[in-house]
Amino acid sequence: MPAQQNSVSELVNPDLQKERDGASFRVDEFARWWHGGAEKLRLKRELEQELFNDMTEHNTLLHYKSHEEIFELGLKQSFEVAKKLRAMQQRINPGGNDIWPKLYSSTWIWGAIPAGNPFGVQFAMMVDAIKMQGTDEQWERFGKRVENFEITGTYAQTELGHGTFLRGLETRADYDRTTQEFVLNTPSLSAYKWWPGGLGHSCNYCLLVAQLYIDNEPMGVQMFFVQLRDEETHMPLPGIDIGEIGHKMGFYGTNNGFLGFKNVRIPRTNMMMRNAKVQSDGTFVKSPASVLTYFTMVMMRCMIAADNALLLASAATIATRYSAVRRQSPINPNEPEPQIIDHVTQQMKLFPEIATAVAHQLATNSLWSMYYETYGDIERGSYTRLPELHNLACSLKALCTADANAGAERLRLACGGHGYLTSSNLHIIVASAAAACTYEGENTVLLLQVGRFLMKSWRAASEGKPLTPTARYLAAPAQGKGFGKWTGDLANIVSAIQYAAANKVRLAFESMAQRLKQGQTQEEAANNTGLELTQAAELHGRSFIAATFLAHVTGPAAAERSAAFNRVLQNLLELYLVHTAQRHLSAILQCINLSDSDLRTLQTRIETALRKLRPDAVSIVDGFDFHDRTLSSTLGSYAGNVYESLFALAKQSPLNQQPVPKSFQTILKPFLKSNL
Amino acid sequence: MPAQQNSVSELVNPDLQKERDGASFRVDEFARWWHGGAEKLRLKRELEQELFNDMTEHNTLLHYKSHEEIFELGLKQSFEVAKKLRAMQQRINPGGNDIWPKLYSSTWIWGAIPAGNPFGVQFAMMVDAIKMQGTDEQWERFGKRVENFEITGTYAQTELGHGTFLRGLETRADYDRTTQEFVLNTPSLSAYKWWPGGLGHSCNYCLLVAQLYIDNEPMGVQMFFVQLRDEETHMPLPGIDIGEIGHKMGFYGTNNGFLGFKNVRIPRTNMMMRNAKVQSDGTFVKSPASVLTYFTMVMMRCMIAADNALLLASAATIATRYSAVRRQSPINPNEPEPQIIDHVTQQMKLFPEIATAVAHQLATNSLWSMYYETYGDIERGSYTRLPELHNLACSLKALCTADANAGAERLRLACGGHGYLTSSNLHIIVASAAAACTYEGENTVLLLQVGRFLMKSWRAASEGKPLTPTARYLAAPAQGKGFGKWTGDLANIVSAIQYAAANKVRLAFESMAQRLKQGQTQEEAANNTGLELTQAAELHGRSFIAATFLAHVTGPAAAERSAAFNRVLQNLLELYLVHTAQRHLSAILQCINLSDSDLRTLQTRIETALRKLRPDAVSIVDGFDFHDRTLSSTLGSYAGNVYESLFALAKQSPLNQQPVPKSFQTILKPFLKSNL
Ligand SMILES: Cc1cc2nc3c(=O)[nH]c(=O)nc-3n(C[C@H](O)[C@H](O)[C@H](O)COP(=O)(O)OP(=O)(O)OC[C@H]3O[C@@H](n4cnc5c(N)ncnc54)[C@H](O)[C@@H]3O)c2cc1C
Ligand SMILES: Cc1cc2nc3c(=O)[nH]c(=O)nc-3n(C[C@H](O)[C@H](O)[C@H](O)COP(=O)(O)OP(=O)(O)OC[C@H]3O[C@@H](n4cnc5c(N)ncnc54)[C@H](O)[C@@H]3O)c2cc1C
Repeated sequence: MPAQQNSVSELVNPDLQKERDGASFRVDEFARWWHGGAEKLRLKRELEQELFNDMTEHNTLLHYKSHEEIFELGLKQSFEVAKKLRAMQQRINPGGNDIWPKLYSSTWIWGAIPAGNPFGVQFAMMVDAIKMQGTDEQWERFGKRVENFEITGTYAQTELGHGTFLRGLETRADYDRTTQEFVLNTPSLSAYKWWPGGLGHSCNYCLLVAQLYIDNEPMGVQMFFVQLRDEETHMPLPGIDIGEIGHKMGFYGTNNGFLGFKNVRIPRTNMMMRNAKVQSDGTFVKSPASVLTYFTMVMMRCMIAADNALLLASAATIATRYSAVRRQSPINPNEPEPQIIDHVTQQMKLFPEIATAVAHQLATNSLWSMYYETYGDIERGSYTRLPELHNLACSLKALCTADANAGAERLRLACGGHGYLTSSNLHIIVASAAAACTYEGENTVLLLQVGRFLMKSWRAASEGKPLTPTARYLAAPAQGKGFGKWTGDLANIVSAIQYAAANKVRLAFESMAQRLKQGQTQEEAANNTGLELTQAAELHGRSFIAATFLAHVTGPAAAERSAAFNRVLQNLLELYLVHTAQRHLSAILQCINLSDSDLRTLQTRIETALRKLRPDAVSIVDGFDFHDRTLSSTLGSYAGNVYESLFALAKQSPLNQQPVPKSFQTILKPFLKSNL
Repeated sequence: MPAQQNSVSELVNPDLQKERDGASFRVDEFARWWHGGAEKLRLKRELEQELFNDMTEHNTLLHYKSHEEIFELGLKQSFEVAKKLRAMQQRINPGGNDIWPKLYSSTWIWGAIPAGNPFGVQFAMMVDAIKMQGTDEQWERFGKRVENFEITGTYAQTELGHGTFLRGLETRADYDRTTQEFVLNTPSLSAYKWWPGGLGHSCNYCLLVAQLYIDNEPMGVQMFFVQLRDEETHMPLPGIDIGEIGHKMGFYGTNNGFLGFKNVRIPRTNMMMRNAKVQSDGTFVKSPASVLTYFTMVMMRCMIAADNALLLASAATIATRYSAVRRQSPINPNEPEPQIIDHVTQQMKLFPEIATAVAHQLATNSLWSMYYETYGDIERGSYTRLPELHNLACSLKALCTADANAGAERLRLACGGHGYLTSSNLHIIVASAAAACTYEGENTVLLLQVGRFLMKSWRAASEGKPLTPTARYLAAPAQGKGFGKWTGDLANIVSAIQYAAANKVRLAFESMAQRLKQGQTQEEAANNTGLELTQAAELHGRSFIAATFLAHVTGPAAAERSAAFNRVLQNLLELYLVHTAQRHLSAILQCINLSDSDLRTLQTRIETALRKLRPDAVSIVDGFDFHDRTLSSTLGSYAGNVYESLFALAKQSPLNQQPVPKSFQTILKPFLKSNL
């Protein structure tokens, strides 16, 4: 038995070193580009250094702790990170918010809170919501305490019975004119709040979303600032039934909770009253259609889309490095076993995911730009671009999360047996992406919304009316223009994807029209056309991603990049576009003619693109510049000493701390003896 | 707050009852058919009754236990089940093996060992391997003890460095002529055994797969019976380094282990010598090509394929029942919220998975028949059908596991937020299917094997030579016959899928030929054609599944079924075939002409098939007849009281046992106070 079994060498694995030496471009250029400039990259590294420097235990050892220990670790680490981020904000950019609280809900800190942050919702949603929905006085009274982390809170919206359909929420806030209070009640089991992050045992306050009733008349959903637990003792206040909703497939330490009320009274002035109001005599003043509420939601979706591009990139980093270290199955018998990254099917598992992560990052960058522009417009009183932003955020949230979920699972599978070990950290990445498919707008529901937007756009296009920029590709097809000729060059592929998207939009529109003619309501027709609407929405999103990627690689910014780096981006673009065309080939073939030889060429181009990316693959994922602690993977660390890491971590399993488990005497031996 | 929150009603949820009342067919007819007859169904229910009757705790509470507790539970429950199965075998069919040990490695008992069975490998592989590879004397000496559970063991094959490529195994067994012993050694870290189920702390013996060396000359991989731990004390024997490989994403209690040797000596007579032999003077007698070793592997793959059809069916049961209970999002505004199963996009998430589970069950039934026939042939000395059986088992293992993994995840997502809770049990089903994609032949590696078989078949077909039955559809296309006309009837769709498969085989064959002409070796060419080979193999497998489903529904057996039940099967077949055609539409369109209206018709047919299946969906999954304990799901029990179950289970989380966690005083409060 080899002696080194318990220590992990810091030396870089020679196979990885060889890959790095052989790259055709400079990794640091990639890393600067990926992070938006040298300064941002430097800052990120500084931050990581500070966040991670005192962490010693491997993150995946978490899985040996008890549920309660994990909860405690989540609290402790969340507070540690908050302190560090505040200190860094103070030091680097005092008065700003780019580090604290902004990064507190970003993926970059996950490596420092592997259990998940029970206060993520407090800082990603609750603080903003009080700012936007509360009066200035309410901000002073509650908001600042929340922002200052003097109290803990969450945004309590989803109920056992209602997530997607918010108007269906059942929790009641009845106004009692005599005492000028709201009386909070949970009228049924399904009305229990269920899911809010941190609600279980971590928070003493919440921003409650409930149905306002005045004289038993429903006035719609409003927000209320509610104390849940005593600040000194943490005991739930009278009438409050609170706890956590139990074990989940991921986010083990986020302490998502349930909450029921029985005649809990709060002062009238605890309703958020910047927009809607309840006056002391019970007069209800409606809110002017609040664009800003809606805007927080859009912002969250932008963030999720961007985070999921990174999740996919992190899984791709792990699987790619592992594939360069792992050797298996000689290609020619009697030759040595190759790195598995040399099996062409393996390349097809890795490289399209790398290309997709890059495509999604560029698309979400572009989404963020649109977000800030629209924000500026709104501050100038113009709302015209909001629907487009909203729909783009829905599309990209749905596609980036779905692709990260499925892609990370493909990457996990690409690591063979060892990808099944928790110490690979891959299934945790999969589980994070999986959650994002559901929260902040379930993906199908989002795609259906986009589908309805596309129906309006198609109608406008057919009538020759102006279209928003992201839907402009519908104009020509709606006016009956054909695709023209398939040439297969990159711009032509992007056009083909757009044309196929337009064709799906047309088909859905015609089906809708048919159903409306049969007397179905708009909503029934939309439900019955749901399959075609979601297909159209998906292709619409892919069109945007493809067009953005093309523009980025071939646009003016190329001049700022080295030729070597541009070649890498071109290879990634080529793979992404040809692969996307193949993935949606049936939609393309439905409206564009490709000859037998065109189709063969596509297949060959994929193979060629894989071959071209092969020597650069490891360096590309190095360029994502994930910290080892962020990856937390025995298979994917920078040094790549995979077998040593696997072994060292296995040795730390609690069961391996003694040669004979105590159950031998109590369970195993008696059973075996009974069979003698 | 409602009073009933802690108890779960046994009354059937009214929405589910309504579904059951409205079914167009008799569930019991379905259940009998699904289980292969009334007697088998009765037996299964009897078995379940006995296995589950004394279990009280919800299986998903497992996730609150410590790693060591889960390990103990795995041991205890595995022994309980073994005792019960042996007693039932004894009572129901003494001397047989249809209950014990056969069912010990089946999915049906998973509900009784939710942690996973550390002795699964002992009874699924080790016993058989000793029987087939050991001499009669060895069987008497070792085998019987293993079979009788006097000792515990596993089949130790995979190493840290080698899973797929068996010839690469590094563990050494050097023959020492002087003492007539083998000396076992682990020459490097990567040579450590790694993965065998139960190896960690559960077994005292193993069947070791190692490289035999005689006078330092390698003689290939052989099997050795090796004692690992003392029977009385369970201490590892001298020179043995053993433990478990650590936490995994599933199978928490199966105690997969590692194993290293340092000069461990075993007698010569511990090598399995039915076929290969080492004589006392060190003469090596080669094994006659052992078909039987190979046959165990084929059998395992048949089993895995069949199990995964059931896994998918179980996930479909949970998600379908939940979708009938869950109400969300009014279709027409101001109308009540529908059961989510009435959203067409939701139907598309559920029903194709149900149809796929049925298709896979029928295909694996057919695979089993072929298995038994081939077994019979072999006993009569005829080996001709073995390659076909082998390849069909590879195809179906790969497709049934991949579809179960992805399908169960789609079904999990279809349950929205609650599908993310461990108490839904859905992610455990996903994780089980995920493992099956990797073990017993990694899926890509299997598809590549099938691809190579198809290359040979295509050559034979082109030369007009006879083809094995499952490849016979290649004959006409290889002879240049065109497809004929797309009519879209069911038989025509099956032919189209076969024709598209043949076309992919042709394309791969041509690419191979091209590469061979360029001077690549057969193996290099196969690697470079990997993408096309796996595409061809996938379609080949789907062709078989589609053809089998069609034959079953339209064949003579239909006469034995009621008209009402036949209609249900026809609806499932229709959905399966049209959906499969859509899924592989680009492959079909590459070689078959479909008009615009043909394509529209396909879309409409999907929608129609969903509508037809809608009223029967709940009863169909009822017909799978999963015991509530097998499903172990708060979302999917027969009675369907989903919210009550979710709530009752959440209340059992350890954190919910006291109102204030102890960490409040130690962690939370100090932090909050520090911010005042
Ligand atoms: C990890 C995690 C963390 C969360 N954190 C929070 C939190 O901090 N605070 C909070 O308030 N909530 C939280 N949630 C809850 C989350 O917001 C909801 O789960 C989400 O909004 C989805 O809603 P749902 O669960 O009601 O799904 P459902 O709407 O019940 O979805 C179930 C199925 O019905 C389908 N469906 C529903 N409506 C339609 C429709 N109109 N048309 C077609 N199909 C439809 C869906 O597509 C899906 O397939 C969290 C959830 C998760 C998983
Ligand atoms: C839950 C679980 C239980 C297990 N139980 C046991 C057990 O009881 N006993 C035991 O001995 N083992 C067990 N195993 C190990 C299992 O048998 C191996 O993991 C499996 O054989 C896959 O091999 P690998 O891990 O070496 O994957 P690898 O071969 O390393 O696969 C990694 C990647 O390389 C690719 N690749 C490899 N070879 C080729 C090729 N020739 N061409 C193209 N691509 C290739 C694969 O497609 C995959 O994408 C278990 C594994 C799991 C996950």
